[in-house]
Amino acid sequence: METRRAAFGTSVITPSNQLYVRNNLPAPDAAVLENRDAWTVSIEGVKSPRALSLAELKTLGIDTVATVLQCSGNGRGFFPSKPSGTPWTVGAAGCVVWSGVPLRNVVAALGGLVDGMAYVTGTGGEKLPEGVDPLTVLVERSVPLKAMDDALLAWEMNGEPLSLAHGGPLRLVVPGYQGVNNIKYVKRLAFTPAQSQARIMQHGYRMSPPGTKASPDQPSVWEMTVKSWINSPLPEQGPLKAGVAQIHGVAFGGMHAVKGVEVSVDGGKTWQAAQLVGPDLGRFAWRQFVLPVRLGAGTHVLASRATDMAGNVQPQQREENVGGYNNASWNDHAVTVTVVTWHGLPRAWAVGGLTLLAGASVAADPAEIARGKLLFTTLQPACAVCHTLQAAGAEGQIGPVLDELKPDADRVLRALRNGIGVMPSYAEKISPQDMQALARFVAQATGAASP
Amino acid sequence: METRRAAFGTSVITPSNQLYVRNNLPAPDAAVLENRDAWTVSIEGVKSPRALSLAELKTLGIDTVATVLQCSGNGRGFFPSKPSGTPWTVGAAGCVVWSGVPLRNVVAALGGLVDGMAYVTGTGGEKLPEGVDPLTVLVERSVPLKAMDDALLAWEMNGEPLSLAHGGPLRLVVPGYQGVNNIKYVKRLAFTPAQSQARIMQHGYRMSPPGTKASPDQPSVWEMTVKSWINSPLPEQGPLKAGVAQIHGVAFGGMHAVKGVEVSVDGGKTWQAAQLVGPDLGRFAWRQFVLPVRLGAGTHVLASRATDMAGNVQPQQREENVGGYNNASWNDHAVTVTVVTWHGLPRAWAVGGLTLLAGASVAADPAEIARGKLLFTTLQPACAVCHTLQAAGAEGQIGPVLDELKPDADRVLRALRNGIGVMPSYAEKISPQDMQALARFVAQATGAASP
Repeated sequence: METRRAAFGTSVITPSNQLYVRNNLPAPDAAVLENRDAWTVSIEGVKSPRALSLAELKTLGIDTVATVLQCSGNGRGFFPSKPSGTPWTVGAAGCVVWSGVPLRNVVAALGGLVDGMAYVTGTGGEKLPEGVDPLTVLVERSVPLKAMDDALLAWEMNGEPLSLAHGGPLRLVVPGYQGVNNIKYVKRLAFTPAQSQARIMQHGYRMSPPGTKASPDQPSVWEMTVKSWINSPLPEQGPLKAGVAQIHGVAFGGMHAVKGVEVSVDGGKTWQAAQLVGPDLGRFAWRQFVLPVRLGAGTHVLASRATDMAGNVQPQQREENVGGYNNASWNDHAVTVTVVTWHGLPRAWAVGGLTLLAGASVAADPAEIARGKLLFTTLQPACAVCHTLQAAGAEGQIGPVLDELKPDADRVLRALRNGIGVMPSYAEKISPQDMQALARFVAQATGAASP
Repeated sequence: METRRAAFGTSVITPSNQLYVRNNLPAPDAAVLENRDAWTVSIEGVKSPRALSLAELKTLGIDTVATVLQCSGNGRGFFPSKPSGTPWTVGAAGCVVWSGVPLRNVVAALGGLVDGMAYVTGTGGEKLPEGVDPLTVLVERSVPLKAMDDALLAWEMNGEPLSLAHGGPLRLVVPGYQGVNNIKYVKRLAFTPAQSQARIMQHGYRMSPPGTKASPDQPSVWEMTVKSWINSPLPEQGPLKAGVAQIHGVAFGGMHAVKGVEVSVDGGKTWQAAQLVGPDLGRFAWRQFVLPVRLGAGTHVLASRATDMAGNVQPQQREENVGGYNNASWNDHAVTVTVVTWHGLPRAWAVGGLTLLAGASVAADPAEIARGKLLFTTLQPACAVCHTLQAAGAEGQIGPVLDELKPDADRVLRALRNGIGVMPSYAEKISPQDMQALARFVAQATGAASP
């Protein structure tokens, strides 16, 4: 599952039930959650290697960290090359709060690291299919040793025991690193001199230039980079009313806190500084940004561009790669919204019930049809902004093409009176006579009028 | 509903589905959530008073704030006077993230305040029972005007549209103020020269000294004060294993950020500084605190005491009052835990399966019974620590009273072998012969032995 872009909300935290889920292999049986404290993880590459139960880990310390958890394929859907893998746009990411024991506490409790170790290698407890070499499927990833400073062995997410879907009973959380490095159901945590030999490490999740095969000499999908996107307004929310809109979205810096976010309403030609709002949950969390803008009728390309504390600026273009990883392009994440001018009261206030002068079945006269045609393009908002109707020279792309829908006059009247979908009611905007004229014009123009 | 003390977790945020729910009147019909944007709130006491729809509020600004939401009766269960009302202990509180429009933006958009206003008065949209004077039941509360600076009209909690149970579509959130002032389904927001005349304001939620009747001259239940409590370990989690325990809990300052938390393991005789861990969500949120302590066998009274940035220290004693409000006493919130010494491997590692030398039905000899009696009080942990058994002079209060349970030898053996509930397995601690001796002694002592 993924989070709908419009559902990210503005409360910083992504609810557990809305956080994306992505697994490379089937999860272990849910029975492992029956006695969470009995889960064990084998710690290797330390001076006193041993298995530790979750009950024991809980005695070694507790810390809490908020992180952006993001699938490295988030944004893959914007690659024109259509890489294999889920074509995520923005929904494979969330900001959640983890609790667990700092990995450095565990290392200290076991006598410290053995000399010469360069990687933290986590092995997942997923079910392995039978009859294949485990190394070809095992979920085992290595991250550079420095990641140990921030990593947790976490048993709780967003205030609840970690669910199986999100890696419970125990997950290796590596703040700032792409999702795949946050090993679920971690059963082995080894400090190693070299990277894991598992295929997912050697040949998976590599930044392979177009036309190449994945190989261990290419950069691995590790640290996230500075990125942001707008969550509202979005085109799927329907046309906006002209006036002030609050543009909001999320921004994160990967390894660094976000310094600022700029927003453009003209596709990147000009930029304005947005405001960072709400609580700052630390450098690995995302920030909410808001910018009120005044938008006139027409279409607007909205984009956001974040800068992190290290001075990195979110790039305009994605870095092309075979797997469709690490897409932070602000250009790809821009959205195009349509703004219309609505007069009268907002739709929510429209008073229902209206007595029309006559039913729509009474014969039309030519003057009424002409009036309807005029209204079609001059009303505020004009029907022509959203609808295509050849007879009116209208080519709107938002609502149904009336030449194809061929609504009869009653249907048009109902839509005008009550609104339908994103179309507002015109009941408080124009007279019943004008609604009737419009309805008759449309019905006649599309051939749906009564003979 | 309330949050179980052991379920608060350590992730700062209280999940929406675990947050306490407390209403003074029935909620409006859920139908009001069908078109959230159509909800209207009437704004009065401003220069251009008018009703605003939620859709309009959303154009006026967005901010996000994390607050402790706490029922003023949280802690009432500790009052020996047994005030009427739910006897909450700690479960009527949570820390959640709200999003909405700052109230000051709304005031600015409507021309500013009318002169002479001293209170922010919110009116809830609850269903009023018929046939009674509305003022006797209306949920309408006034808070001092200064609360406007931090207040939100909120439509989102923890990243999701606000549920009906928590006041959706729109709630007045007054950070730092007791729960009752955070008006649900707010339908009127008035700046007023005087406090509401509703009974809930005039005679409800007053700090009435013992023996008095509630009256408007007594302090209203408004600002929260500095408070903390321990969420783990708790007595209901069973006896602890001697060694290091991580004491953790939550602390908040009401109107001020938490400066620090001290923890005592001797009922308040001595105190140690705990560590504040995890993200700081701002001064109205709570902080997590953690202190690792080494606990030996015996009972320990664990207490926590917070200090806020203004120098206020959480008091030892509650302020007695008729309604049982505002209990911040660290003494009341202390917990008593039992610690036992367990030898051998932790229970999670106990190897299952054991071949006993003989079934428990074979006749016992006196030497074996004597051995069992000796083991009952000398084992580590001794049976006598937890169980009462007259024949052994044991008066433990943690597990079942064996004189009443009268388990037969097989039942005792099963418990020794596998553990049961909080009782650990002894399979890796003592020999099968000793388990058998114990089982036979207990069965004979309580009269449950085979003849």
